[in-house]
Parts: sequence; structure tokens; C-alpha cells
Amino acid sequence: MSDKLSPLAPAHSPILPEIAGVSCRIARARYKEWDRCDLTFVELAAESTVAGVLTRSKCPSAEVEWCREALRGGKARGLVVNAGNANAFTGARGREAVQLILSLASDHLGCEENEIFVSSTGVIGVPLPKDKAEAGLQAAFAAQPCSWEAAAATIMTTDTFPKMASTSAIVGGETVHLNGIIKGSGMIAPDMATMLGYIFTDAAVDAGFLQDMLSAATAKSFNCITVDSDTSTSDTVLAFATGQSGAPALASFDDAGADAFQAALSDLCMQLAHLVVRDGEGASKFIEIAVTGADSDDSAKRIALSIANSPLVKTAIAGEDANWGRVVMAVGKAGEPADRDRLTIGFGGVTVARDGLVVPDYDEAPVAAHLKGKEIDIAVDIGLGSGKAKIWTCDLTHGYIDINADYRS
Amino acid sequence: MSDKLSPLAPAHSPILPEIAGVSCRIARARYKEWDRCDLTFVELAAESTVAGVLTRSKCPSAEVEWCREALRGGKARGLVVNAGNANAFTGARGREAVQLILSLASDHLGCEENEIFVSSTGVIGVPLPKDKAEAGLQAAFAAQPCSWEAAAATIMTTDTFPKMASTSAIVGGETVHLNGIIKGSGMIAPDMATMLGYIFTDAAVDAGFLQDMLSAATAKSFNCITVDSDTSTSDTVLAFATGQSGAPALASFDDAGADAFQAALSDLCMQLAHLVVRDGEGASKFIEIAVTGADSDDSAKRIALSIANSPLVKTAIAGEDANWGRVVMAVGKAGEPADRDRLTIGFGGVTVARDGLVVPDYDEAPVAAHLKGKEIDIAVDIGLGSGKAKIWTCDLTHGYIDINADYRS
Repeated sequence: MSDKLSPLAPAHSPILPEIAGVSCRIARARYKEWDRCDLTFVELAAESTVAGVLTRSKCPSAEVEWCREALRGGKARGLVVNAGNANAFTGARGREAVQLILSLASDHLGCEENEIFVSSTGVIGVPLPKDKAEAGLQAAFAAQPCSWEAAAATIMTTDTFPKMASTSAIVGGETVHLNGIIKGSGMIAPDMATMLGYIFTDAAVDAGFLQDMLSAATAKSFNCITVDSDTSTSDTVLAFATGQSGAPALASFDDAGADAFQAALSDLCMQLAHLVVRDGEGASKFIEIAVTGADSDDSAKRIALSIANSPLVKTAIAGEDANWGRVVMAVGKAGEPADRDRLTIGFGGVTVARDGLVVPDYDEAPVAAHLKGKEIDIAVDIGLGSGKAKIWTCDLTHGYIDINADYRS
Repeated sequence: MSDKLSPLAPAHSPILPEIAGVSCRIARARYKEWDRCDLTFVELAAESTVAGVLTRSKCPSAEVEWCREALRGGKARGLVVNAGNANAFTGARGREAVQLILSLASDHLGCEENEIFVSSTGVIGVPLPKDKAEAGLQAAFAAQPCSWEAAAATIMTTDTFPKMASTSAIVGGETVHLNGIIKGSGMIAPDMATMLGYIFTDAAVDAGFLQDMLSAATAKSFNCITVDSDTSTSDTVLAFATGQSGAPALASFDDAGADAFQAALSDLCMQLAHLVVRDGEGASKFIEIAVTGADSDDSAKRIALSIANSPLVKTAIAGEDANWGRVVMAVGKAGEPADRDRLTIGFGGVTVARDGLVVPDYDEAPVAAHLKGKEIDIAVDIGLGSGKAKIWTCDLTHGYIDINADYRS
């Protein structure tokens, strides 16, 4: 947890409603030398379903491997999140720590081990200490339930503010609620501190259908943000549905309310994803990159990511410089179909370059004023087709270097 | 040209020999408000051959498009390099400026236009002013020939030192010489200032064979360096062979001396490529990343590039932190075959992690000492096959942010 609040943090934290069938508890496992809660235990009602998306890293943590296996069962009773130690690259001893947590939590809840989900976040290369995990978990079992804000704060590492969002949908005449908490400060924060997100709903949703909806929502949200182009070994988003709302169960888009639920879930994922960018390491500007006119949507996404991940574009925005030449460069290097002489580039709604060159009588004043703000819009039209995509990122500043060049020292 | 010399600059500049059939001249075109030479004109003997490699950007400059076309002829009599204005993204007016230069230089030399090669480097989006180009070119035509060092200095933009290298080979009992000059400070320097390299030899080499040899040398040198992962719209490397040495002509590897020439050319390209990294924007460390044990050489190269382009790895090195966890992360995100539990990672010849976890009794002292130096070696063995690759890069520092967030202001 950093001392300095991100300048892009929301002015107010939302108040999240209770979700029937979900109770959060926190405790001090003391994974690091700090005086704060760092272990979160979430209990879910019997028959809760679960879906998840996990890092595509070829070197994932033991926790990620376990979640991938347990997701096959589609059922969940408990979630344990450790902050301060990522338990990544820790070999057999890392796997033993996960096994211990599964054993303790499943005994406590009287459920199968594959109904327990585990995440860890923090320094890598140090096996999660089993004694601290056990003591912390026992303390959490005995604790009173806590607020959503307390849970959101307990999963943090280098985050500068707790990240939460909430929404609802009408399913079969009943209101279902969706709450989400997330941590992450950088697509990967220092030492794999990484993105972990958890979504809870009282809707009743078939696990396979929940997976379809979560995957669709992720493609347009978590997979459309980038802070520094790095991908962590622990990235995890899990969605849990307790079925306690009384609303009819959803199993396909043929069910009444399924579309509304998908929309709410997608909205929640987008809110959470944007919060991660707003806490990007060293970020001073929130940047939306909208690409249109590409050969296909996939092509547009690759071009938008090429712009969003370009250090030269990100430093230009940090310098409040509408440097459209660097945007051209990033379009060119994406390797996607593009024609220099058909490109249109705008900042903050003002077209800067069109048809291969700067617009006649270009007035930099309104663009410069836009660049001085905290919310930057870059629009690129490729001029070839109808493919489009949006990507969100932040600028690259001295703060990023400070955080990442000095983290372990 | 920056005021501050890169800390990685070589202690001494080499003295380059003359190359028979090559004469360099420089002049002040005053493309920017500066009092320095910024136009380089190189005259080549009749019957000189040429080969080249050009940016793969989909949005290249008019100069790159022209060079690509002229290379088909395989013959060269002249080269014009403009510094201070990249003439990129300038539409029809940019093409007119190139055409003017072709016309003036081919008239002056009494040759075909497709024997004239042109490069421009500097700010983008501003058409190269034809009046300045013409006055500069006429001044260069009238100037006395200059030294290689003067030519290397004249093609610079944000470079902090002129970059030159020389080597030789024995072909048919005769010594042939190869000189190279290059500019670039960043894989792409601010506003497309970019990498431009020129190689000159008095050997006689068939244009097609020269192309084969240059492409092979480039694959292991210029295409194995990265400063910030950005690819410019103007990257150009051209090799000219005047055939004035008296050595027998080379047309294939069956010719005596062809292997020696390829070796010399490859060595020259490597020297020049490393000089670009040593002038990387903000660089304080020169980093070699050697990947072995990958599924294939291509796979090894992609993994090495993933490590070299990771902002988290680069900032860790800037912070003199042997953060092998970030190396694991970068291996994992490369998308290439890898197994966390088979990885071996070393810094400066000391193995830090093996078989998925930190080595027993890891002693950080020698590794920390290595990280304090200016030449950093990172070795990664994937443990799967025999594929290998080396990539060179530099660290990511506050200096990079300073240069790139403030360039236009």
C-alpha cells in the first residue's frame, strides 16, 4: 500500500450492498513485516457456481494452476486471498502451501477441496510460509464478517486505493446484485503484485453459462487495459454466483434476464478494469485509445494495443504533447493493414492529421488544453474498413521508474 | 545532438581508413535553427552496387519507399542524408522534396535517379523544405571531401556521440575495407529520429549477393537490438560496394573470400548495432540477454525480446536489482513454449534460480556487484531444446522519460 494516492483515484468510494450468500472475513497473517490485514477469506453459500479467467502466462503460479483445475468443477464454497507474497516461482514448497490452505478451508466449510479457490499476490520467489497461512486462516475463520471495503483493502499490495464497484440487473422480476473488488497497479505491479479481481452475485447462474458471460465481458474490459505491457504470472478474475436472490436461474441467453445480467456483468468488469488503470504505477493521465476503420475488430485491437504500449506515446502524453507522429509510428509497427495516407488522428475530439498529413491551419491550442487534463482521448481512424476497438491505458512517468527501479531496495 | 554524453559511449572513436571510390561531403541546410552541418552527400564510384534493409513499418517515410524502389536496380552513385527533419507523414509534399533531391543529385553526378539514395531523420509531420534541401545540396556539391567522423556527426540528431566502425577482410589475396556510420538513439529516437546506417566497402560485390549477406548480418545485429520496443517509420541500413579495391568480384559463397567478407560484414553490423544501444535514450547499462534451451532459435529470439522489451525488467536493471522474478514474468508472457519448473536464470555468470525456484543458499553479493557495473549479462535457459538467441538492450531510466516527455516543449 503506497503512501501517495493516485491522482486518478475516484473522488468517492462506492458503498457496496450486501450480497446474499457471501460473507467476507479478514485477518493478519503477517506475510510481510506490516501491521495490516493481509488474508481475506470469503465464504459462499452451498451450491454457489463459479467461473474464471486466468493469466495466459506460460509460467503461472501454483495458485493459478489450482484455480484452473478447480474451475472444471464449476462449484465454489470458499475463496482465500493472500497479500504480500505471490508464492510464484516457488516450486514444490509453493504447491504445499496451496494444498494446506485447501485442506484447512475445506475442513472448516465441510466441502470438497475443489470448491476452494486461492490467490496470492506480492513478492515472488519466496514460498508462502505455511505457518503464517495457517495462523492467519484460523484467525479469519474466527473473525466477524467485514465490509466489502475492508476486503478490497486487504487484497491490496502496491495499490494506492481500494477498488470496488457494484451494479444490478432485473432477472425474472427480481433484482440481482453484482459486487466486484479488484487489486492491481500496473498490468503487473512490482514483483508480480498483479491483477486479482473477484465478482460476487446473488443471481443463480449455471457455471458454464457464467463462464461464457465472464469470458465475453473480459474480452472487452480486463483484456483491453494495459499499464506497461507486462503480463503477470498470477492474473486472476473469478466470478461467484450464490443463487440466493430468489431470481430464476440463468442457463443460457434464452432465459429472461440473461441479456440484462450480461450487460450488468460487462459494466461491472469495465468499471473494475478502469480502476486498475487509474491506479497504474506512476499514472498521471487516464488514456482512452479508440481505433476505427481497421480491417477487422481484432486488427483494430492490435493497433490500439500497439499505441497503448508504446513508451514513446505514453511519455508524450506524460509531457502533455499531442505528438501524433508517435501515434503514426505505433500504427505502423503494429504489423496490421494500414495506409499512411489514409490515417486520421485526433486528440480530445479535434482532428490533428488527416489523409497522411497534418490538417491545414492546424490549431494546437484546443489540443494542448485537452492534453493538460487528466482524461485523454486519442482517436485513430485507419480508413480501410469497419473494424473498431477501444483500449485504456495510462501515461509513462518518472513515478513508474521510481516505483519499479527501487521496489526491492 | 545532446549536451550530455552517454555514459556508455566508447572511450575512443576509431580512425576509419579511406574507402576507394567513396567521398563524403557535408553542408549546412539549416533544417533546424542550429549552427551545424545537417546534410551529408556521399559520392560513389561508377558501377557501385547497393543492398539495403528497411523498416517493416506499414507507415514508412517517402524516403524509405523510394529506397525500396531504387534498391531493385542494385546500383548506386550517390547518397543524401538529411538530419533535423524526417519528412515522414508529409504526404505529396514530402515526396516532392525527395524527387527534387533525386533530380539535383542525378544531374550533378550524371547518373540515373534510381542510383541516388535518400534518407531523412528528425521531426516528423513537417515537409522537408525544398529550398533548404536545394541550397544545402548545392553547398555540399561544392564542398571539399570530409572525414568519416564529420559524416558520422552530420547524420546525428539526438545522438550523444558519432558512431563509426571499421573492419577488413582478405578477398583473393587483396585486403578489402568496410567502414560503417550509423545514427540512432533509441530503436526509434524522439519524433522518428530513428536508426540510419550506411556501410561502404571497396570490395566488388554483386548486388544480389550483397543483399543476401546484408540480410543475414542484419538478422543477428540490427534486428537483435531494442531500446524501447518502438519501430520507426524511417529505419534504413544501406551497404554500398564500390569495387575499387582490385580484389576479385564476389557473387556467391563459392567465391574465394566470400565467407571472410560475410564475417567482416556481420562483425561491422554488430559493432554498429551495439553503438546504437550504447547511445540508447537515458541508458545507463548495456544489457546482453542470452536465451538458450528454447524450442527453436526463433522461439529463443522471441523470449529474449520479451525480456529485453519488458519495462519491469529494464527498470529493475536501472535500479541495480537482480530481479529474476521479472525475468520469469517476461519469459511467461512471450507465449513461447516454456516450463516454469525447468527455467534457469543467471546474472553475470552466477545462477540465481534453477528448476523453478531460487538456488539453495543463494548469495546475492556477487550478483549485486555485477549489477552495479555498466555491462549486464542475463542468461536464461529454457530447459526444453537447443534453440538460442542473443539480444542487446539498455535499461529504462528517468533519463528516457526526461528526453521523451519533454522533446517538443
